[in-house]
Amino acid sequence: MIKSDISNPFSAQVVAELLEKLRQTTPRVHCITNAVAQELTANVLLATGALPSMTIAPEEVEAFAASADALLVNLGTLDDVRRAAIPKALQGARAAGRPVVLDPVFIERSPVRCAYARALLSDAELRPDIVKANAGEVACLPELADLVEAGWLVLATTGATDRVSAGRHVVPSPIHLSNGTELLGRVTATGCALGALIGAFVSVADNPDIGAAAAISVFNIAAERAAEHAGGPGTLMPALLDELYALQPKHIELRLKFSLQTSMENRQETVI
Amino acid sequence: MIKSDISNPFSAQVVAELLEKLRQTTPRVHCITNAVAQELTANVLLATGALPSMTIAPEEVEAFAASADALLVNLGTLDDVRRAAIPKALQGARAAGRPVVLDPVFIERSPVRCAYARALLSDAELRPDIVKANAGEVACLPELADLVEAGWLVLATTGATDRVSAGRHVVPSPIHLSNGTELLGRVTATGCALGALIGAFVSVADNPDIGAAAAISVFNIAAERAAEHAGGPGTLMPALLDELYALQPKHIELRLKFSLQTSMENRQETVI
Amino acid sequence: MIKSDISNPFSAQVVAELLEKLRQTTPRVHCITNAVAQELTANVLLATGALPSMTIAPEEVEAFAASADALLVNLGTLDDVRRAAIPKALQGARAAGRPVVLDPVFIERSPVRCAYARALLSDAELRPDIVKANAGEVACLPELADLVEAGWLVLATTGATDRVSAGRHVVPSPIHLSNGTELLGRVTATGCALGALIGAFVSVADNPDIGAAAAISVFNIAAERAAEHAGGPGTLMPALLDELYALQPKHIELRLKFSLQTSMENRQETVI
Repeated sequence: MIKSDISNPFSAQVVAELLEKLRQTTPRVHCITNAVAQELTANVLLATGALPSMTIAPEEVEAFAASADALLVNLGTLDDVRRAAIPKALQGARAAGRPVVLDPVFIERSPVRCAYARALLSDAELRPDIVKANAGEVACLPELADLVEAGWLVLATTGATDRVSAGRHVVPSPIHLSNGTELLGRVTATGCALGALIGAFVSVADNPDIGAAAAISVFNIAAERAAEHAGGPGTLMPALLDELYALQPKHIELRLKFSLQTSMENRQETVI
Repeated sequence: MIKSDISNPFSAQVVAELLEKLRQTTPRVHCITNAVAQELTANVLLATGALPSMTIAPEEVEAFAASADALLVNLGTLDDVRRAAIPKALQGARAAGRPVVLDPVFIERSPVRCAYARALLSDAELRPDIVKANAGEVACLPELADLVEAGWLVLATTGATDRVSAGRHVVPSPIHLSNGTELLGRVTATGCALGALIGAFVSVADNPDIGAAAAISVFNIAAERAAEHAGGPGTLMPALLDELYALQPKHIELRLKFSLQTSMENRQETVI
Repeated sequence: MIKSDISNPFSAQVVAELLEKLRQTTPRVHCITNAVAQELTANVLLATGALPSMTIAPEEVEAFAASADALLVNLGTLDDVRRAAIPKALQGARAAGRPVVLDPVFIERSPVRCAYARALLSDAELRPDIVKANAGEVACLPELADLVEAGWLVLATTGATDRVSAGRHVVPSPIHLSNGTELLGRVTATGCALGALIGAFVSVADNPDIGAAAAISVFNIAAERAAEHAGGPGTLMPALLDELYALQPKHIELRLKFSLQTSMENRQETVI
């Protein structure tokens, strides 16, 4: 049985409740994402209990984003069609009050994408609510520290340990999450799919930092369970989708590993 | 052993014979389909015994479609390249006398796609031979009822029960098909892949309604068998491809569930 | 134990050593490839131990190709974006001295692609180092014989038996390779993924013909092992990725099947 902990807004129970809420409400996540990640992203959302849409056609993307419950903007493919689609999708999501997740894939290898990501962050109207990035990508976006501190966005930094930082968060410090398996690094687009799942969880959460931390935990706990019976990176993926589909509160309670840091120094280090 | 039933043009034996004919003749299906569905669609065709091609480049698509045995037009991605490719592919397929399947994905969420689908239906030269759609998509295409009644196209409506309706069909009423597994709804692009398989079967069938019903039955019986040993939506997909590859007449005879409706009221309800 | 054979530059030991070197150095392979093949290609590279990148955006592709260790140009999708990207990527790879693999997919069915491939071969500055093609594709490129004979490129012809031919090679004749499983033909994009793996191996090999032959052998030995416990084409793919991840020198020593042909007649037949 999961015990309630009123004093702590992040716990196995909270994660389990958000997963259950997601399954009951089947939120729609519109995904502007790279070509490699589209199929896995759709399947991760479907297996967990959300509904994907993926169109990038400029004449319909605004309506799709506006009628979805969350929007993912992943910069892994940044071609002319997506450049035209992204502002329209952001306008649709903004007008409808939907949360937006930005995943600035590989910006450390592409000045073009980096400039694009920074332009999005500096635009008060189109700015995302959550940025999901690894340390290398975060290093290319020095403005993130101030934006998080000011409470303008939530930053989810993924790595061996994942951290969720927010300036106006409900927990007094970044949430550090330690679930997962190294085998995920041997499968393409797992990080991209997680970005979409963050959108789904944030859409059913009261607070985006709690939603983002719940999504990361669900994904990584399912991956841990999958890795225990997978024969390698090939069978990991079908097993991960099966586990996302079947994940129960008791699995989350047994495995969730997190800590809350409290010192300001640690917190600033998180976002620089 | 499958018993022959001369009086009924749709039966387990007919389905098994069409599957065998497909495997012997390996028809080519040219697929203009959405980015998410391309890989699964190709693998469903290959596993069953057909050969996919997928190019959408406007300068080569007409030749590819003309040299294929069937053409699938799936509107799940309707970008500028595909808008340029679709008429050329349709001309190629038409000139070569090949059957064309239209899958109007998500037209109920996109006025742009809906208008495009209706324009295709109203064009006597480019009109598809088979429309595969779910109830929501069919509801956006009110002209379908008249087109089916006049014998201009076959409508395959997918859902918990699938129905194949034709005005000039060889069976006296819609074919109702009841195989499948709910787990298919948790995997992206399974319906899109089925659209391509319908093209493959229609290309080897004497009548498009029988071909479409056989394709749906083979796909759903393989999915039923896969679901019995799959651990969830992730392992369902590899298992489905294995089952499509290995499916035998006895499996079809054991599992095929269908009925023929005869009243006009039921028939009209099918296509409205 | 693998025995060293100083007199033979291609052997199980050489293949195992190149695989180990690849895993230690994790070369980056930039892939301009078709939409259907992108995900599997990335996963084959990751499972084996290399790192994929896939962008085709014209404004960043040159930098990606220049910072990668090898470049794959696959003509399976030849749209306007890729037409703009390919010369830039080739320039980036050439300037950085990286090996380039060309996979002229389906050129026998598309005069447009065939002309494009021939133009690349006739351009002394942009010409690839390795061409990977099946017999039908090779037949559309009559200039290959002279280019191989002159030592300007290595030709890997795939089929029931694979052959690697080089004019200035370190072995005195084409390498004939006989591993693999017919089941690979029932899964889309396996040949395309192999093209990328050839790039990865060539980038860590002293000689491109040895690198190409090693890549083909590793891929096909892993596929043989996967086929022995797969239930069909669906489960073959996850199993192949698992085997690529886990492949050991003893597996290569046990299974590698190759021969070296020495007569000139046989050699010329290889490339015509």
